[in-house]
Amino acid sequence: MWSKCLKSCTIRFSRPILDLGNDTVQLSTKSNWEIPGEPQGPNVKTVVPGPNSQKLLQELNKFQQAGSTQIFINYDKSIGNYLVDVDDNTFLDVYTQISTMPLGYNHPELLNAFSNEHDLKCLINRPALGVYPGEDWPKRLSNIVNSVAPKGLAHINTMMCGACANENAFKHAFMSYRRKIRGNDEFTEEEIQSCLHNKPPGSPNLAIMSFLHGFHGRSLGTLSTTRSKYIQKIDIPAFDWPMAKFPQYLYPLEENQRFNDEEDDRCLAGVEELFEKWQKKGTPVAGLIVEPIQSEGGDNHASPEFFKKLHEICKNNNAAFIIDEVQTGGGPTGKFWCHEYFNLETPPDIVTFSKKLQLGGFFFSENMIVNQPFRTFNTWMGDPGKVILLEKIIEIISRDNVLENVRQTGEYILQHLQVMEQQFAPLIHSTRGRGNFIAVTAATSEKRDEIIEKLKRKGIICGGAYTHTIRLRPTLLFGRKHSDIFLSKFHEVLKEI
Amino acid sequence: MWSKCLKSCTIRFSRPILDLGNDTVQLSTKSNWEIPGEPQGPNVKTVVPGPNSQKLLQELNKFQQAGSTQIFINYDKSIGNYLVDVDDNTFLDVYTQISTMPLGYNHPELLNAFSNEHDLKCLINRPALGVYPGEDWPKRLSNIVNSVAPKGLAHINTMMCGACANENAFKHAFMSYRRKIRGNDEFTEEEIQSCLHNKPPGSPNLAIMSFLHGFHGRSLGTLSTTRSKYIQKIDIPAFDWPMAKFPQYLYPLEENQRFNDEEDDRCLAGVEELFEKWQKKGTPVAGLIVEPIQSEGGDNHASPEFFKKLHEICKNNNAAFIIDEVQTGGGPTGKFWCHEYFNLETPPDIVTFSKKLQLGGFFFSENMIVNQPFRTFNTWMGDPGKVILLEKIIEIISRDNVLENVRQTGEYILQHLQVMEQQFAPLIHSTRGRGNFIAVTAATSEKRDEIIEKLKRKGIICGGAYTHTIRLRPTLLFGRKHSDIFLSKFHEVLKEI
Repeated sequence: MWSKCLKSCTIRFSRPILDLGNDTVQLSTKSNWEIPGEPQGPNVKTVVPGPNSQKLLQELNKFQQAGSTQIFINYDKSIGNYLVDVDDNTFLDVYTQISTMPLGYNHPELLNAFSNEHDLKCLINRPALGVYPGEDWPKRLSNIVNSVAPKGLAHINTMMCGACANENAFKHAFMSYRRKIRGNDEFTEEEIQSCLHNKPPGSPNLAIMSFLHGFHGRSLGTLSTTRSKYIQKIDIPAFDWPMAKFPQYLYPLEENQRFNDEEDDRCLAGVEELFEKWQKKGTPVAGLIVEPIQSEGGDNHASPEFFKKLHEICKNNNAAFIIDEVQTGGGPTGKFWCHEYFNLETPPDIVTFSKKLQLGGFFFSENMIVNQPFRTFNTWMGDPGKVILLEKIIEIISRDNVLENVRQTGEYILQHLQVMEQQFAPLIHSTRGRGNFIAVTAATSEKRDEIIEKLKRKGIICGGAYTHTIRLRPTLLFGRKHSDIFLSKFHEVLKEI
Repeated sequence: MWSKCLKSCTIRFSRPILDLGNDTVQLSTKSNWEIPGEPQGPNVKTVVPGPNSQKLLQELNKFQQAGSTQIFINYDKSIGNYLVDVDDNTFLDVYTQISTMPLGYNHPELLNAFSNEHDLKCLINRPALGVYPGEDWPKRLSNIVNSVAPKGLAHINTMMCGACANENAFKHAFMSYRRKIRGNDEFTEEEIQSCLHNKPPGSPNLAIMSFLHGFHGRSLGTLSTTRSKYIQKIDIPAFDWPMAKFPQYLYPLEENQRFNDEEDDRCLAGVEELFEKWQKKGTPVAGLIVEPIQSEGGDNHASPEFFKKLHEICKNNNAAFIIDEVQTGGGPTGKFWCHEYFNLETPPDIVTFSKKLQLGGFFFSENMIVNQPFRTFNTWMGDPGKVILLEKIIEIISRDNVLENVRQTGEYILQHLQVMEQQFAPLIHSTRGRGNFIAVTAATSEKRDEIIEKLKRKGIICGGAYTHTIRLRPTLLFGRKHSDIFLSKFHEVLKEI
């Protein structure tokens, strides 16, 4: 009943609302999105976490270490860009479940995604996709590849999460590297026997290179490439793999081009040195993984030129070039894939995804195809129930030209933040972003935490990253009106500090 | 409409059907289960894979290496213990999506699992459970812990799959081991700095011990403990961790007790040696992982005495005792957890799960609690949508005394297979099992493959494991009638070979 009622609703345009106090920046956005039923703004009635959240936290702590839990949510009441918690506080959500909600809460069309019997049955009869896929599985993959595959990457494997996507990307890099060295896919008896004992040549000494401040997951393979916070890594054994330095730009970019160009060169030289060093150590680098924007590490950007040259270095060293779009993929940067901004001359070897795409997986090029079955395999190999949501999300993004909203709203927020950065220097600086994937850096780690805490009390849920960064990860439907609310609350907070 | 119609259906008992030709074994099972709408038996109309499956396979191969794909399934038509493929062939499914379907296809009560608005919204508004859980999350965890937590393990973390469950179990073992050594949770500056470089002491040299023929996953950490098939491991770097030998019993057990007891002792001595050897190497063993029945490795059983002593050895070495119940958990052995059969004197430290439980995760003891937040963490930390199914599955298993059916049906199948084993010696041997988690060994690997292939042509989907094993992984609702069909087809196949 309720789902039928929602079926007829669609997202509507409304006129831009511009009411940011004294601010003078005016932008020519043409679109503004409103989700039916969204509140007019945030409304915080209690301390945060409120008494009900605190009570539930005590319950949860009985079963697990729940120290990361912020508040408990009423997901029935949450709508669009707004989260409603169990104390009836309403928050404008600029963090969206660690950047995983492309279209916000209770989107009417997603609520209808399982309203037909066939799709509902997909949820109950979950196949082992690598062995007994459903009749529509090739069609579903084809739809995804044809609509959003990165240019030149027509192959796909689905997984469950970002870490699993990256783990399997590494495995493809290793298998492909060994095939190149070996010249074929015929394993020797020594390889076959030794791998069961975790010894070379069957379990070869090969490495994946990653970057300081990079984040690629927390399973033991991916954690060996994650180099952001110690709390994620300490006490856990890791592979002895090389870590390169990622450019640390000065902002504004226009005023620091020379320094930043040199920073690119320094980092690229470092990458080349590490390739050589690990080759000499007897643990050649089979692949390099990099985020188009280092996200957990503090929203660190690098130039298209940097990525182009990085790609060249990988090619010269026979290493797979793996772009981790787990956090950037799915539209938040204003393009479906952030690396589209780099105009690489040839496609990367592998692009991994998760978060906004609802399940994990990776697209890959023809040279990364593994020739034997059961080498890229696990029990479920993804989840058709998540792909149903993904198909719907892609359809809406395309049909409603949602990425145009992301680009325009993002530009609007960026320009306002740049003005505030000057107004409140040196409290915040280094405003940067693509689309609405935006960050600023606070003067100190303590100021950063204070800003986020004060925003929360004013009804804005915003994310921190690394030590000093405040990051925005709104939905793709975050519009002018939401931006104005965020910017005005942010302005208030900066004034208070 | 359709879901309302199904709502009134419940699973019904029916009288046992005994029609196994010349067979004389009679068992006193009291229960037999019938799912409304199930066909009377298998019906294969085409070659397998049929023309429609072959066509879809060509499609799928465009996007990925699809060599593991068997047939494509019509999940709308599949029902209960029967799979219907895209060529309208009907199979009795004795493998159930690699042992992941506890109640079969399109179970009427599971089809209703999302019929209320609140639960449907859980599918759309997927939280980052470690940060913003829904209001009912503590209650849901409490329900699961109170109904099925292994004795003594009152803590739980949910994940997405079995590999992720095991990866995190390893991390808990490492963190707990380091805390014991360190005496507290205060990290040194050297540990904090070195872990970002993947170097000790921050990234310590610690190991997880596992067993030959064990399977624990395919991510790089778990793959270092997986020791079944080379195709899963070859070309992938691995940690230098110890592999112990798992008992290889002779059957029937009653006639080989002395050999098998000695086998236990030999293997346990080997485990102790490896603890000592790795300690001397400077890579102490922080945890040991073992399946209660080695599943992918060929359904290898070991005695309760073996597991009790293994547990003792772990305690003596300060190593976490991790029981991997990914394939055995959820009822197929006739108890909810297979290790209940072992009557361990104190609980294991960690029990991991996935498959029949729909999502991954692990239960753990108080001494395994990690004191700091964000050490056991990832974006989603499981999936409430899967927990809704799990709650329903647990409710049905308990309400309908489903495990009694598993035990009785399993005993019935076992006794018949033991008769056939004698009748067709030496073609099959070593019939073994707990509940309906049953296996026999074929004389050769080729004969094994031939048996499975011929069964498929007669409409029985059955699994192979390792080199010589035929394994049964039916639903928990696999009853006398289904057993008779399987046994009679199996009998036919053995006669033909």
